[in-house]
Parts: sequence; C-alpha cells; structure tokens
Amino acid sequence: MTPRKKLQGLVAATITPMTPDGQVNLLVIRQYVDYLVSKQNVKNVFVNGTTGEGLSLSIQERKRLAEEWVCQGKDKLDHVIIQVGALSLPESQELARHAAAIGASGIAVIAPFFFKPTNKDELIAFLEKVASEAPAVPFYYYHIPPLTGVKIRIEELLDGIKERIPSFQGVKFSSTDLLDLAQCINKNKREQFEFLYGVDEQLLSALAIGADGAVGSTYNYLGGKTNLMLQAFAKPDLALARKYQFLTGEFLNFVIKLGFGVAQTKAVMTFVSGIPMGPPRLPLIAASEEFIVKAKAKLDSIVWPKGD
Amino acid sequence: MTPRKKLQGLVAATITPMTPDGQVNLLVIRQYVDYLVSKQNVKNVFVNGTTGEGLSLSIQERKRLAEEWVCQGKDKLDHVIIQVGALSLPESQELARHAAAIGASGIAVIAPFFFKPTNKDELIAFLEKVASEAPAVPFYYYHIPPLTGVKIRIEELLDGIKERIPSFQGVKFSSTDLLDLAQCINKNKREQFEFLYGVDEQLLSALAIGADGAVGSTYNYLGGKTNLMLQAFAKPDLALARKYQFLTGEFLNFVIKLGFGVAQTKAVMTFVSGIPMGPPRLPLIAASEEFIVKAKAKLDSIVWPKGD
Amino acid sequence: MTPRKKLQGLVAATITPMTPDGQVNLLVIRQYVDYLVSKQNVKNVFVNGTTGEGLSLSIQERKRLAEEWVCQGKDKLDHVIIQVGALSLPESQELARHAAAIGASGIAVIAPFFFKPTNKDELIAFLEKVASEAPAVPFYYYHIPPLTGVKIRIEELLDGIKERIPSFQGVKFSSTDLLDLAQCINKNKREQFEFLYGVDEQLLSALAIGADGAVGSTYNYLGGKTNLMLQAFAKPDLALARKYQFLTGEFLNFVIKLGFGVAQTKAVMTFVSGIPMGPPRLPLIAASEEFIVKAKAKLDSIVWPKGD
Amino acid sequence: MTPRKKLQGLVAATITPMTPDGQVNLLVIRQYVDYLVSKQNVKNVFVNGTTGEGLSLSIQERKRLAEEWVCQGKDKLDHVIIQVGALSLPESQELARHAAAIGASGIAVIAPFFFKPTNKDELIAFLEKVASEAPAVPFYYYHIPPLTGVKIRIEELLDGIKERIPSFQGVKFSSTDLLDLAQCINKNKREQFEFLYGVDEQLLSALAIGADGAVGSTYNYLGGKTNLMLQAFAKPDLALARKYQFLTGEFLNFVIKLGFGVAQTKAVMTFVSGIPMGPPRLPLIAASEEFIVKAKAKLDSIVWPKGD
Repeated sequence: MTPRKKLQGLVAATITPMTPDGQVNLLVIRQYVDYLVSKQNVKNVFVNGTTGEGLSLSIQERKRLAEEWVCQGKDKLDHVIIQVGALSLPESQELARHAAAIGASGIAVIAPFFFKPTNKDELIAFLEKVASEAPAVPFYYYHIPPLTGVKIRIEELLDGIKERIPSFQGVKFSSTDLLDLAQCINKNKREQFEFLYGVDEQLLSALAIGADGAVGSTYNYLGGKTNLMLQAFAKPDLALARKYQFLTGEFLNFVIKLGFGVAQTKAVMTFVSGIPMGPPRLPLIAASEEFIVKAKAKLDSIVWPKGD
Repeated sequence: MTPRKKLQGLVAATITPMTPDGQVNLLVIRQYVDYLVSKQNVKNVFVNGTTGEGLSLSIQERKRLAEEWVCQGKDKLDHVIIQVGALSLPESQELARHAAAIGASGIAVIAPFFFKPTNKDELIAFLEKVASEAPAVPFYYYHIPPLTGVKIRIEELLDGIKERIPSFQGVKFSSTDLLDLAQCINKNKREQFEFLYGVDEQLLSALAIGADGAVGSTYNYLGGKTNLMLQAFAKPDLALARKYQFLTGEFLNFVIKLGFGVAQTKAVMTFVSGIPMGPPRLPLIAASEEFIVKAKAKLDSIVWPKGD
Repeated sequence: MTPRKKLQGLVAATITPMTPDGQVNLLVIRQYVDYLVSKQNVKNVFVNGTTGEGLSLSIQERKRLAEEWVCQGKDKLDHVIIQVGALSLPESQELARHAAAIGASGIAVIAPFFFKPTNKDELIAFLEKVASEAPAVPFYYYHIPPLTGVKIRIEELLDGIKERIPSFQGVKFSSTDLLDLAQCINKNKREQFEFLYGVDEQLLSALAIGADGAVGSTYNYLGGKTNLMLQAFAKPDLALARKYQFLTGEFLNFVIKLGFGVAQTKAVMTFVSGIPMGPPRLPLIAASEEFIVKAKAKLDSIVWPKGD
Repeated sequence: MTPRKKLQGLVAATITPMTPDGQVNLLVIRQYVDYLVSKQNVKNVFVNGTTGEGLSLSIQERKRLAEEWVCQGKDKLDHVIIQVGALSLPESQELARHAAAIGASGIAVIAPFFFKPTNKDELIAFLEKVASEAPAVPFYYYHIPPLTGVKIRIEELLDGIKERIPSFQGVKFSSTDLLDLAQCINKNKREQFEFLYGVDEQLLSALAIGADGAVGSTYNYLGGKTNLMLQAFAKPDLALARKYQFLTGEFLNFVIKLGFGVAQTKAVMTFVSGIPMGPPRLPLIAASEEFIVKAKAKLDSIVWPKGD
C-alpha cells in the first residue's frame, strides 16, 4: 500500500447531477471528474455532503453515487471522501461499511441534528460508532453549526479523539468561529490532522491562521481562481491573494442577495462547466431563469488579475 | 368499508421499545397496545414520530414497527397514524406506500428540516409528493417548529390545501402559536379538519380555543388523567380541568428542570407501565438513575382530585 | 388610606402621543383617559412600556408623561402603573422614586437586555435595587422574553420573591410559555399575586389556566370587545368567548401579515379613537397609508356577536 | 487646525472604573491613560462602549466620563472616540452635541436594539439624526450584531452613506461576517473609511483581508502583544503573527470557558495593570475570586515569542 498523500489545497463539495425528472444522473460523473481535474485543477472531492444533497437521497442512491465517484476518480483524483452521516445510526454505519468496501479515501460524518448532541460525549459516542465500521478509512468530522445547530467546539472535541477514533484524520470546518479553528490548529500540530475550511467566502482569513485547505461548493467552478489565491498566499503575496478573495467574494455577495443555495449552485455549475447538473430535489426548487441570467452576467463581468 | 370515525381526544405518540443492545423490540408492542387501551383509556397512536425516534430508525425498522402497531392494534385501537416523513423524499414516499399497504388509519409528515422549505409553496410541493403515494389514507401535517425550524404558519398552509392534497385530514400542532391555531380552527369549520395539539403541558389552553384533541408523549403514562381533564372541560368544569392541567404541568415542570427528552420519557414509561422500553438510540443517551428516582418520587407524590 | 383594589381585567398599554414633529404630546392625555374609560371600559393603564415607546423617550420625557397620566387619571382610572425599567440602574431608580412621589399605583420593570441577566440571582438583584427606591409602591415584573431575550422562568423567579421585594405584586406576562404561567398561578395562590397576560391574541388561552387579566396594546381600541370576552368566559360561555377571541385574532392575524408593530398600533388607535397619536419616534417609522387603509377596512368588516 | 491623523492600529475599548460602592471613579483615568500609552503602546480609545458599560451609565455619568477621557488624553492620546448611542434618540443627540463640545476626536453610535431597525433606511435615518448634531466630528457606526440583533450588512449600509452622513468615517466591525467586511474594504477604497475590527480573538483573519486596525477590550491589557502581531503581519512574517494570535487566543479561549464578559475583563485589567477597575454595575456581577486566580495563572503561564 502506498503511503497516503496528505490532503491539502482544495476539495470540491460535489453536486449531485440529476436528470430532468429528478433521478440521480450517474452518466455525467466521468465528465465531471475530468472537468474538475483539467479545468479547475481540483483533485479532491467530498461526495454526498450538503452541496450534494446527500441527505435528500435514499441510502441506495448514496451508495451508487459513491461507487461512481470512486470508480471514475481512480487514477485521476487524489482523494474521494464520502459523507456517510445520517440521522439514523444504523444507516450511517451501513454507509461507512460501504465506503470502506468500495475503497473511498475517507469518510466524513455530519453531526446528527434532529436530536442534537448537547455535549462532546454524546457527539463522540455517535461518531465513534460510525467510524468503527470503517476502521481503516480516514475519518473526518463535518462541522457545520449553521445547518445542524450543533455548536460543540472542535477544540474540545479533538481533545483525546485519537483514543476514541483511531482513524480520525481531520475536520471540514464550516463555521465562522476562527478562534476555535486557530486553537485546533495550534494544539494539534503533532497529530497531523487536516483542517479544511468550509466557508468559501472567507477562506483567506482561515489560511491566515493556518488552515490546510478548503472544502466547498464554489471550488467546482471557481477552483482554478482559488488555487491562484492559494499560490499567492504561499509566496506570500497577500495583496494578490486578497484580490482573488475580493473577486470571488464579489460574486458570492451578489448571488447571496439574490438568494443562493444548493439549487442555485447547480445552475451556476451547469452554465460554467457545460455539464448538465439538472434540477435539485424537493424540498429545494430550481433556480429561476432570472437568477441564472444575472449570475452569469455577474460572473462574466469579473476581471481577474492579469497573468492568470 | 365502515365510515371513518373522526379522530378526537387523545393520541399517544408512541415510544419505540428497544432491547438492551439497541434493537427495536417488537415483542412488547402487543402488551403496549393493551396497556394504552386498558390503563390509559387511549385508543389512538402516532407511530415513528419524535417520541418514537422515527428519524433515528432505518427505513426497514420503521416499516416493521408500523406493521406491528397496525397488526396488534387491530380491533383494539381506533386510529394508527404512521409518521412517514423523512429528509429524503423517495424514502418518505416509500414509507407512505407501505403505510397504505398495511392499512394504517393515517399518515403524518414532518417538514423536511435540513434544507428547510421557506414558504408555503415549497412545503406543499414536498407534502403533496408524499401524500399522492397514499391517496386513500388520511394525511396529517406534523407541525413542530421548535424542532424543525420550519415556521410556515398553518393558517396559510391550509388555504386551498384540499386542492393539492385531497386526502388532507388534519394537523399535529406542536407549537405555542395559539393565534395561528385559533385562526386555523375558525377558518376551516366546514372542512372537518382535525386539530390535534402537541404541546402537552398547555393542552387546556388549546382546548379553550377549540382544539379537537391532542397527540403527545405524556398520554402514554398520563393519558387517564388527561382524559379526566378532557371530561371536566367538556362539562364545562373549568376549575377541575385546571387542577388536572396544573398537576400534569407540575410533573412536567419538575422533570424539565432535570433535563427531559425522549430518553427520559422512555424511562418514565418503563416505571409507570412496567413494560421495558429499553434505552434510546444514539445520539440520545439513557436517562440517569438519579433522574429515574427523582421523577418517580415526584409522580408518586402527586395527589390527584378525588373521585378520580 | 383606602385599601388597594385588586387589579383584574384589562389594562391598556398606553401609546405615547406625539406631535407631528416628534415631541411628546401631553395635551391629549386627558382625552385619551376619557376615551379609555367611556368607550373601551378600560380603567387601568400601563405607561412607558413597549407600546408607549418608553425606552425611546428621555428620562425627562418619561417623568412628564407619567405625571400627566397620574394627574389626568385621578378619580377616573383605577390603576396607573408606570414602567420604570431602563438599561441604566440609576436611571431606573430615579424613575421609581419619581413614580412613588407622584402617586403612581404601581411600577413595573422590564429586565435589562443589553447585558442580560442569565440567572434568577442576577435578575432579582437588579429588580430589588429598583423596587427598594419605591418600597410602598406595588411592584410588577415585566416579562417579555421575545423582546429582551431574558428567558428566566417566572415560576423560579417568584420563589421567595417577597423576601427580596416586599412590594412585589405581580407580573405582566408577555410570553407564550403557558406551562410557566400555570405553575406560577398554582403555586402562588396564597400570595394574591396578579398575573396579567400580555400576548393579546391568545388571552383566552391564558384565562383558561387562571390569568387574572391582561395588559396589552389592543385594549386601547378593542378593550370593549375584549371585556365582552371576559364576561362570556366568566359565565362560562366558552363558545361566545371563543368568538370574540377569533375575531380579535382575525384582525391581528391580518395586520401581522402586513407588518404590525408599535408604529402601526399608533395609526390604528388614531383612526379608531379619533385622538391623534402622531408618528412614532425613530428607529420606528410611521405606518404607511396603505397599511392604514387596509387595517381600517379589515376592522370595519368584522361582524361582532349580536347583543354586543 | 492640524490635519487629522488617520486612525490605524489599536484602539482600547475602555473599561469604566468604579469605586467599591459602584460610582464611576474618575480619579484613575489619568493613570489609565498613562498606562495605555506607556505600557501597552495604545494611543486610541473608544469610551462608553460595551466594555465601558456605557449603556448602564446615566447620561450625566457618560458625559462626565467622556470629559475626563478627553481632558486626560490631551497631548497623550491620538484619538478619543466617544460612543454616544442610546435607545433614546434625543439622549443620543444630546451626547453627540456634548462630545463635539468637549472636543472628542470621533463619535460612535451603536444601532438601537429594543426596537430594531430592520432595513438600511431605518438604521440610516436614526444614525443621521445623531450625526447631524455633531457635523464636524468623525462618525463611526458601531456594528455588533451578536449583542444588538441588528444584522443589516455594512456593505449595503455604506452605499451612498456620505450623502446622508458627510462626517462618516468608519466602522467598528464586531461581527464574524468577513465576507461583508472584505466587500466593504474593497468597495470603499477611495473613501478612506477606517475599518476597525472588533472580534479580538480573530483579528489576524481580519488583517488578512485588509482591516485597518482594531477596537477591543483586550487591547487594554494585551495591546503590547497585539502591536507586535501587527508589526509581524506588516513585514509580513505570518508565522510570527500567527504565534501572537494563537497565544492571545489561548488566553481568551481559556477564560471564555470559565465565563468571560465585561465583569471579568474589569478583573483581568485590575490584576494586569494594577489600576483598580472596581466592580461592574448591575445587571453584571463581579468576577469570582476563582476566576481571577485561574485567569491570572493562565496569563502568567503564556510564553511569548523571544525578542519580545
């Protein structure tokens, strides 16, 4: 077995393509992989997460989609992380076993959010039961308090986590609490954990305190630009990095005002990549034509730094 | 087919019994049915809801449990309503078809709450897709904004609902917005909708404005006392009705301070009924011994009105 | 000194009339008192509360207004309660001393809400310091968690309160937590505390569990109708009481959808009473003409029970 | 008149010293000024804000305190900004006129938060009325949505603000919405507005996107260390800047777990500076001895980078 390559840089939170009548469209995954690699320079994916409408899919759909990403990503992608979290523990465990069986590079678990864990012990107990079904697969906790309402601080969660979850590998950190993120990074240097930031519109601020990379929906269609930001930051050329962050932020700020969610992300990815992402599944409803026209015009109007 | 009997009075939100190792324990459902009917005078049940940890079960578990309630309830219960809501529309549809097939008296659907419908149209679109899979089965909307965060007002939702959901029958109304409830009742008198209140500790206040009955977890073990409250209210003997509400409230107020949720409800039902409800499933954790001792002592200390 | 008459029934949360250029208009208070007594059959007022924009006034304005209400209410009103709460303790104390000096029937204090008390001890410490400046004046706690964010339960607050605040008299209870209200009523029967409900649109539900009366803005213009509801409830004729609650609720439900706050209440009171209430003070802005037209048409369209 | 020096770097959100019996203690302001300048290298102050318990003081107390800071700061401090926001517009206007009269370098206004402005127009209308009372004094908007609940985005607020408030100078930005901050900075380059970040524990992340400086309570006692972070960032030596941010964050993270607010800040400043800050005013209550011992031990245990 070749040693695992540390996950750094960008991870696309994948969209789940659907046919016009609302079925998962596996046929375009191959094209999607090629697009991410060749056009966006993004070689890592996070499947069945929020952007992928993972919780709106049936267990069977989630499995088939995971298989397709692992299969099509072979020799092309570096990391295929499957989000296996579910409200139901046995279903989450089933998905974890499946992910292990198909050779996923990692699994991620969102906190259960109907009954919400209120302290670290309750959360760890749940995560542990899932992780232990796939003990050889790197485990990521998917922290997204604005959607789950589970606000247990990560710095606290990580204290002693390797004893409970030996496969623990990192966090998709989708919170604006950068004090928490900074403390996590600082206290776990020896552990080699990966901290992947998940609030795309302020990634530069997370890089400033040491985030390893990012998982997000915008890297599907702005991955190339964001990679240039990462390069500028690494030099460091902060002024240039800031320009990229300002410009991606300008687009996001614009669409957020119009109403921006997963349905709209599907529409944007469709017009940027040319790959038909199809409609979202209920309770989401498709982006309006008006949204699409305005979003496209805005994105086309952005003048990126020269030499790009 | 005999004409449907209008659902009034109390509906027990059923607990899902589990074995010590966390599997659904179907073996005690028969005893559970008999207990509700003979000891609590409760002949209606709401299965796989919040109290039943419905969303923590797998789809297969939910189906098997629904079957058992319908089967054991035959000729004993008046109404067996199956909660078939799920985050995933196809799974919710599958559960609806299954409930119809096994002869459930009704189905109920909680609003999807990961992606949250933000207006009536989005919510109705989802509900309609589920209801249409079981068109002959009375349909209930399960309104519980404190848990779902979906705050679309019911009065608005019901406007024209029969055109979209011909099987629409009523609402499990678990909200403290009694203006909304009162308007619903007042505006829909011709429709014969059923409004079943879901905040047990203030049921008398909902009866005052015309609620038809109630669905709740406390009717598992305080159904008999609450039925006496309903009788007193019907006379009307408000002073007596108030006494019952004060006393059930005194118990609930006491346990709420100790920390009261579904796990604790399982423990209370176990010591009151003698039927082993078992532990909850993660992310819930079992009630502490201390809780059980204190809750039991409190319940035993309550002196109910004479003649009871 | 004549014995105090127990406060029951309705209390109008008074509006603060203003001149077109935004100054407090004391000149119409006399007319306002006469209107409440003769047209609405309301003989109690709550001055400088939320509806009165008390916290938007200067300390001097609050004092002058309180004086005017006490003066004009002499021999006409039964109770003039002055809300003396403020974010600044010394200012609240100054207002309490002033209210005592001018002979107010009671003082009320809203919880401080910039720095929010997080437990009973912190809240009581603040209230005690205000109450002790006017030890002979009946003291009311003004509980309005939706506006203050202070959610300390009243049942807990009242436990032992007479030892800390000997002048404690009651609560303006503007919360939908009717379990809390019911427990308060039940546990404090000997104390003769007054529980005045403050969520007008669901008053009937609070009466059902034993509320003594109500404080609210709608009693300025719907006091007469609400008094008829109280009478029907007292008989008891619940069906008739419900009709009144439905109809006042129908109006409130309608205007809430249009956007209903203190500014709009001023406009409604102006067209109902004919007394010019003037504009609100910033940050509130005046109700739109469209709102006024629609609200008036709605109110005019309501057909109240015969014999009224 | 000498040209105004642009405000950059650190601004201490001043604590209001109090005597043991809770009166404002003006006598130590001189010492406080000298301490900030000589020990913390901080030459700007923000008076009567959240840390200063400004809203817990009477209007007279706020005026006297502002006078003392302006007077003692003469020739020693660069900028003395007086927070003049209040719930009552006339009081806020009175404070603005007073600040102008005593020669304050700037005024700041927090959004009114009892009645909350819900859109830009309502907020601007209020701010404009205050600013126009001190037209020659640079005006700052104090944006602190976690405390006010007013979430109007700054990027929107600033669009065209000079036409409404010609004296507009900048924002104390106490929010974690860094997309908003970045857009503000990027869109207003020509305006020379000052963006002073107010979430101390993640200042480095705000610097990364171009914040000019910071206003916060920790600069009272960690101003010197934070100035070293600013210097490291300016080089840029991001690794060193990060060390400082990690270490100040480590202290803050520690005390936040113990319960950290203005009362605790007073205690920390007292033991660090030796200047007696006294107790807080109700509804705040003094930090416990246990807190003080633990916080001091933690702060003493931190090993700052060499060469410091």
